[in-house]
Amino acid sequence: MAQQHHEMTGTTGTAGEVLAAYLQEQATEFLRSLRLHRESTTDAQGAEASLEAARALRRAARRIGATLHTFRPLLDTEWAASLRPELSWLSDTLAQEHAYATRLHRLLNALHRLSGPPLVPSPAQPRAPRAEERGSAPRGLTVGAAKAAALLERQLTLAKTRAHSAALQAIGSSRFHAVADNVAVLASEVPLRDGADDLKPPAAKADADLAEAVAALPLGQAGHPYNAEALVHGLAAETAPDAQDAPWLKVRSLLRLHRYALEVLHGHAAPEPRLAEASHALNIHREAAAAASAAAQAARTPRIAPATAYALGVLHADQRHEVEAARFAFQQAWQHETVSTR
Amino acid sequence: MAQQHHEMTGTTGTAGEVLAAYLQEQATEFLRSLRLHRESTTDAQGAEASLEAARALRRAARRIGATLHTFRPLLDTEWAASLRPELSWLSDTLAQEHAYATRLHRLLNALHRLSGPPLVPSPAQPRAPRAEERGSAPRGLTVGAAKAAALLERQLTLAKTRAHSAALQAIGSSRFHAVADNVAVLASEVPLRDGADDLKPPAAKADADLAEAVAALPLGQAGHPYNAEALVHGLAAETAPDAQDAPWLKVRSLLRLHRYALEVLHGHAAPEPRLAEASHALNIHREAAAAASAAAQAARTPRIAPATAYALGVLHADQRHEVEAARFAFQQAWQHETVSTR
Repeated sequence: MAQQHHEMTGTTGTAGEVLAAYLQEQATEFLRSLRLHRESTTDAQGAEASLEAARALRRAARRIGATLHTFRPLLDTEWAASLRPELSWLSDTLAQEHAYATRLHRLLNALHRLSGPPLVPSPAQPRAPRAEERGSAPRGLTVGAAKAAALLERQLTLAKTRAHSAALQAIGSSRFHAVADNVAVLASEVPLRDGADDLKPPAAKADADLAEAVAALPLGQAGHPYNAEALVHGLAAETAPDAQDAPWLKVRSLLRLHRYALEVLHGHAAPEPRLAEASHALNIHREAAAAASAAAQAARTPRIAPATAYALGVLHADQRHEVEAARFAFQQAWQHETVSTR
Repeated sequence: MAQQHHEMTGTTGTAGEVLAAYLQEQATEFLRSLRLHRESTTDAQGAEASLEAARALRRAARRIGATLHTFRPLLDTEWAASLRPELSWLSDTLAQEHAYATRLHRLLNALHRLSGPPLVPSPAQPRAPRAEERGSAPRGLTVGAAKAAALLERQLTLAKTRAHSAALQAIGSSRFHAVADNVAVLASEVPLRDGADDLKPPAAKADADLAEAVAALPLGQAGHPYNAEALVHGLAAETAPDAQDAPWLKVRSLLRLHRYALEVLHGHAAPEPRLAEASHALNIHREAAAAASAAAQAARTPRIAPATAYALGVLHADQRHEVEAARFAFQQAWQHETVSTR
């Protein structure tokens, strides 16, 4: 068997040993986080600890699932294929509450930025507001922003509460117990396939998948600032942005698989700055796209005032521009990435 | 008297002669355009010719006014000071109809871009629309865009018609006849001040004014794409964008004075590409800012549907982003400009 060198930790072992060590480490983290989560939910003051434990649990579940996928040629096929979707279900379910909280925070911050103190002249052009501006400026727009904020807060807080209940219910379910049992087995014994002796081909496959997906992105366009692409057809139908966002979300998933494969191969070093920037940009892409969609969704609430709908339209476009900005940031990071590594 | 060399036309003369030749040329163009405009408005098929003549008339009026301002040390003070505001009034009045037409065109184009054919997947991610998308996608957004287009068309067409009447009324007024008489005098005799012998100091003053105004712009910020500055406080009050737009509009005016001064000194060469790009960017800035303002204004129409207001909000934000894009384009052009000339 080929010897694999675990650079960061200094351990050396066969491919199977390196893979097993990584999976056992993540499984142990999963079980530790689960224990912390159970303790924190019975503790009245444990809301913050509970969120943190859920985050660590998701983090470990994502890494185990990704590793089962990328390094499946080295693992018991049936076992890996059956556990992976269960881990996805778990991390998706646990992620919802946090995602709604993040989305609401992002939208309220954006509304705050959009409806800050009025009539403050820019430093370059100081002037006193004229009397008629103070007196007759319609307050509709500001009122609309406040109403939009209240509407989003109501809708997303409700969604967050439901997600919280769903997560608690999931953690108490027999489906979850089956996942936890599987992970507990994994912590002591990883079902390796006989004769699996090289981590590099599967990791190279993950790289190639990522490169292929990136090649399918419109990076030339994304690298040209203010291309206005993210808003194209934004008023056409609620599903219009999904089609243009999908390739970016796909790259985000594949970039994660790539990063976790690097962790298996080289240990938990901080990722290269440019890779971290690219990942960050795609996280922003995803959050801003979801926020834009939530604003559009809120605008379809029956019987809202026109000023509220107007504010939600401005907010939607603002978040779609953050999507576009994230694509630009990804393009910049990726360009430097490929330049520096080739 | 110092000799001035008129590079492009090859003419050489005193400062007074060069200045007089330029003003007489523009005055002649003014009178020619005025005659064409009068002929076209009595012709039933002359709408296009009338617009073109009005454009040429404005063009000449702007150049005469700018030259009276920049080179005022070489001209009869009282005469220049009295004619200039009259020329401004004239070109502003004549510009309105065209401005409303341009604004409507820009807004309808933007709405078309924003509400193009729905559910067209991007080439990177081909997929067939699912049945439930076709069936249940709310049509509210598209209806909102269509209603917003109809509302803007109604409001801006009305404004355009009023501007057309106002322009015709202005051209028939005694105030206009006084301006035309003054320009007719100018075509034959330019009232130069005694002892005025150098075009360069006034032209240098125009350059310095421009440089000072550009230095006051937040160019560092503008050069950072997707800074989201143009929408800041966009929901605060209708006058919020004016304060941040004012320094850019000021630079636009001063850049024009600079370009016309170059025409006086060097003849009608095409401006340097970078200078043309910078001017173009500031024209877009002005048009997009006015369009964004028109969308916000339309959203304050009483009793509009929420879907219409939402579409106008998206449109407003879209145009404010065009404003931001124009600032970026100006920064890029200007940066190259100063790099290449220093």
